[in-house]
Amino acid sequence: MTVVELIERKRDGGRLSAAEWRELMARYAAGEVPDYQLSALAMAVFFRGMDDDEIVALTAAMLESGKRLALDHLTVPRVDKHSTGGVGDKVSIPLAPMVAACGVAVPMMSGRGLGHTGGTLDKLESIPGFNTRLSLDVAARQVEHLGCALIGQTAEIAPADRRLYALRDATATVEAIPLIAASIMSKKLAEGLTGLVLDVKSGAGAFIPTLERALTLAKTMIALGQRHGCETVTLITDMDQPLGVACGNAIEVLESIEVLKGGGPEDLRAVTFALGEEMLLVAKVEATRAAARARLERALGSGAALAKFQEIVVAQGGPAGLVDAPERYLASAPQRAAFVAPRSGVVQRVEPRPIGRAITALGGGRTRVEDSIDPAVGFLVHVRPGDTVRAGEPLVTILARDAAAVEEARTALGRAIVIGEAVPPRRALVSHRVTARGVEELAAGGAS
Amino acid sequence: MTVVELIERKRDGGRLSAAEWRELMARYAAGEVPDYQLSALAMAVFFRGMDDDEIVALTAAMLESGKRLALDHLTVPRVDKHSTGGVGDKVSIPLAPMVAACGVAVPMMSGRGLGHTGGTLDKLESIPGFNTRLSLDVAARQVEHLGCALIGQTAEIAPADRRLYALRDATATVEAIPLIAASIMSKKLAEGLTGLVLDVKSGAGAFIPTLERALTLAKTMIALGQRHGCETVTLITDMDQPLGVACGNAIEVLESIEVLKGGGPEDLRAVTFALGEEMLLVAKVEATRAAARARLERALGSGAALAKFQEIVVAQGGPAGLVDAPERYLASAPQRAAFVAPRSGVVQRVEPRPIGRAITALGGGRTRVEDSIDPAVGFLVHVRPGDTVRAGEPLVTILARDAAAVEEARTALGRAIVIGEAVPPRRALVSHRVTARGVEELAAGGAS
Repeated sequence: MTVVELIERKRDGGRLSAAEWRELMARYAAGEVPDYQLSALAMAVFFRGMDDDEIVALTAAMLESGKRLALDHLTVPRVDKHSTGGVGDKVSIPLAPMVAACGVAVPMMSGRGLGHTGGTLDKLESIPGFNTRLSLDVAARQVEHLGCALIGQTAEIAPADRRLYALRDATATVEAIPLIAASIMSKKLAEGLTGLVLDVKSGAGAFIPTLERALTLAKTMIALGQRHGCETVTLITDMDQPLGVACGNAIEVLESIEVLKGGGPEDLRAVTFALGEEMLLVAKVEATRAAARARLERALGSGAALAKFQEIVVAQGGPAGLVDAPERYLASAPQRAAFVAPRSGVVQRVEPRPIGRAITALGGGRTRVEDSIDPAVGFLVHVRPGDTVRAGEPLVTILARDAAAVEEARTALGRAIVIGEAVPPRRALVSHRVTARGVEELAAGGAS
Repeated sequence: MTVVELIERKRDGGRLSAAEWRELMARYAAGEVPDYQLSALAMAVFFRGMDDDEIVALTAAMLESGKRLALDHLTVPRVDKHSTGGVGDKVSIPLAPMVAACGVAVPMMSGRGLGHTGGTLDKLESIPGFNTRLSLDVAARQVEHLGCALIGQTAEIAPADRRLYALRDATATVEAIPLIAASIMSKKLAEGLTGLVLDVKSGAGAFIPTLERALTLAKTMIALGQRHGCETVTLITDMDQPLGVACGNAIEVLESIEVLKGGGPEDLRAVTFALGEEMLLVAKVEATRAAARARLERALGSGAALAKFQEIVVAQGGPAGLVDAPERYLASAPQRAAFVAPRSGVVQRVEPRPIGRAITALGGGRTRVEDSIDPAVGFLVHVRPGDTVRAGEPLVTILARDAAAVEEARTALGRAIVIGEAVPPRRALVSHRVTARGVEELAAGGAS
C-alpha cells in the first residue's frame, strides 16, 4: 500500500479501510508522509466524501495520534461545548463557569480566531496574565479542583489533526464536512467527556452557510460521539448576524462578565442558556429543560457562576480583581468613534463576514496563524435587522488604534449594514435541536 | 490574490485568469509557493478541468519559466515526435535518425520510465557512454551539425513543469488531461519546433485507456501547438498489448537497430513508418503520404538512417562500432529462460500493464524517480492476441539476473497472457489521425 494508491482510490470514488486511515495518520503525525500528499487527499475527500466507517476510522486515528485528558477517575459528569465559530460568539466564556457552578466538570478546549471569525483563546488572552497553554496534567488537576479549565489544543492532543487542520486552512479544503467532523470530534473525544453539546452555526457568517449542510455535519458528529460513548446533542444556531453587541477581544470578555452578572445582550443570553440547558441535560444533573434553566438562573443569581469565573482567571494567571473592575485590567482603544446611519429606514442586514474581516483589518483578528492580535480594538454593534433607524443615528461604536483605522472601518460598516424599507423576516436564534434520535425543529426566536 | 483563493475558486468550478496562472507558476518555479498548495490545486483541476484559455495560459507560464532550444536560425524544418508512453515503445530510437536522414532537424527530448512504462532515455543509456544530459547549447549545436540530438529535459527547460510533474506523480494527479497537455506541450514548444507529431496511446497499457479521453487530449494539444505556430498532428495508436517483441532496455536498443537495418517486428515497423510519414508531411519536405513513405524507405534502404544513428551515438559519447556489433556493447542478462504456454488455445490478451510491472520487478524499470535501472533484463514477447498456441510452446523469453527473478517473472506472465478459445477481435494499430481540421478514422490494421 502506497500513499499514492490511497489518494487514487479516494479520487476515483473508493474508500480507505480503517487500518489504512490509521496507518496513514500515524505516519503523517510522525512526519513520514508529506503535506503535499495529504492536501491532495483532502481535496479528493472534498469532492468524493467519506462513508460513516471511514469518518469513524479517521477520527479514531487522529485521536490515537495523541494523549487524552486523564479525567476518568472523576465521579462528576464531564461535559464540553463546541461551536463551529462565528462573529461575536463569546458564549464559551460565560457558559463554562455557569455550568461548572452547577456541579458539572467542564474541561473546555477552545481555538484561535482565523479568517473572519474570532477565537475564544484570543479573547481570554486579553485578560492580563491569563495562560491558556496549560499542559494536560495541569489542566486535569484544575478541572478536578475547580470543575473547569479554559485551554487550547496542546501538542499532546491529536497532533495528526493539528497538522492536518493547518494544512487544510492553506489548501482550501477546510469546508469538507467529513474532515470538519473528524477534526472537531478527535479533539473533543480526547477530553474524556461523558457528554458534548455542539453549536453548529448556520447563516451568512458561518463556515457552513446552508442549513442542509449544517444538519449533515451535526448528524455526522453526533454519530461519532455516540460511537465513543459520549452523549452528543447539537443546536443549530443563527450566524446570519453577529452574536451580542461586542465584537472584538477585550470587549467580548467585558460582555461575558456582564452575562455572568445577570445582564448582557438578549440574543447572547438566549444562546448561552440554550446551550447550558443542553449541557445539564446530557450531564444528567437535571432531567427537564425547565429544571436545567432554573439551575442556571440560580448559578447566576447567587453569584456562584461569576465567582467560578474569577477563580478560573486566578488559577490560570489572571488578576484577582477582574470581575469587580474589568475596565481596570482590560485594554481599551485610544480611538472611540461612531458609525452613524447614512439614511433613515429599516435595517435589512448586519453582515457578519465583512464585520469579522473589518475587525481583522483593525488588528483584532488574524489572516495567518502567526499573526498577533490587538485586544483593544473592535466594534459595539448596537443595531439588529428589523430595527427602524434615522439618518445620523449612531449604529456602531468603532474602537480603533488611530483615525485612519476608524475611517477604514466606517467604509467596511457602510457595506456591511444594509438599510432599506421592508421589514426583513425574523430568523430563529436556535432553529434546530439534533440528537441521535433525529432532528427537532424549534420555534422562531429560539429558546429565550 | 492569495493562492488559497485561487485553489478555492478552481475547487468551486471557477477559472483562473492568464495573469493568475503566470504569477502562480513563476512563484512556484521560484520556490515561493509550497508543493502542498499545488497538489491541492492539481486535484481540484482533476475534478473541475480547465477551459481552453486556462490551458493555453498554463502552458505558456510553464514554457516561460525556462529557456528554449535556440534553433530559429536554421533553414531546415524542425520536427519532433512525442508519445504518451507504453510498454515496448522504442519508436523514438529508430524514428529520429530515419527522419533526420530525410533532411529534417529532429531535436528529440524524451523522458524516463515511470510506473509500468519504459522511457527512451533509460533505453539509450544502456548504450555504454551514451550521454543524454546535454546542455541546451550543446544540443542545439548537434542538431545544427547532425540534424538530430536525443536528450532529456534539462533543468533549463520548463522548470515549473519539471517540479509539477514530479509532484503530480506523487499525488495521483497525473491523469488530469489539461495538466498532461500543458506538461507535454510546454516542453515540446521549448524545442523551437516548426512541426510536431504526437503519438497518443489508447488501450489497457496507456495512461489514458479510453479512446474518448485520448481524443480529447489529442485535440487539446493540437490547439496548443497551432496557437504557438507549431503545426501539430496526432495519431492514436494501440497500447492494448506491448509494441514489438523486445520489452526492456538494452534489448529495445537492439530491436531499434534491427528496424534501422530494414528488419524488426511488423507492428513496430508499422507504427514507426506511420509516425515518420506524418513528420515528413508536417515538415513539408514531402506533399503526399506515398512520397513520404518512399523517402523513409530510401533512408533505410541506403543505410543513411543507420549511419545517422551511429553518428548520433558517437556524438553523444557511445561506441563507434555499435551498429555493426551491438551485442558486443549492450549488456546481456545472466539468466535466459522460456515462459511456455500452460495450455493449448488461442491467445486472448497480452496485458501490457502487468508485463511492464514485471519488467520493473526484474530491475528494468523504476517505481521512484531515484531508482536505478538494470539495462540487461526484460522480456522478448513472441506471441500476439489471436495466435494459436500449443501447451508447452515457448511464448516469452525471460532475461533476468537470477533464478528467483525468473520464477517471479513466470508467475507474472502467467497472469498477463490469457489463453482461451475464441478468436479475439483485431485492433487497429493506428486507429485515428487527428489534425486541427478534425478526426479521421483509419482502417483496422493501421498504416502498414
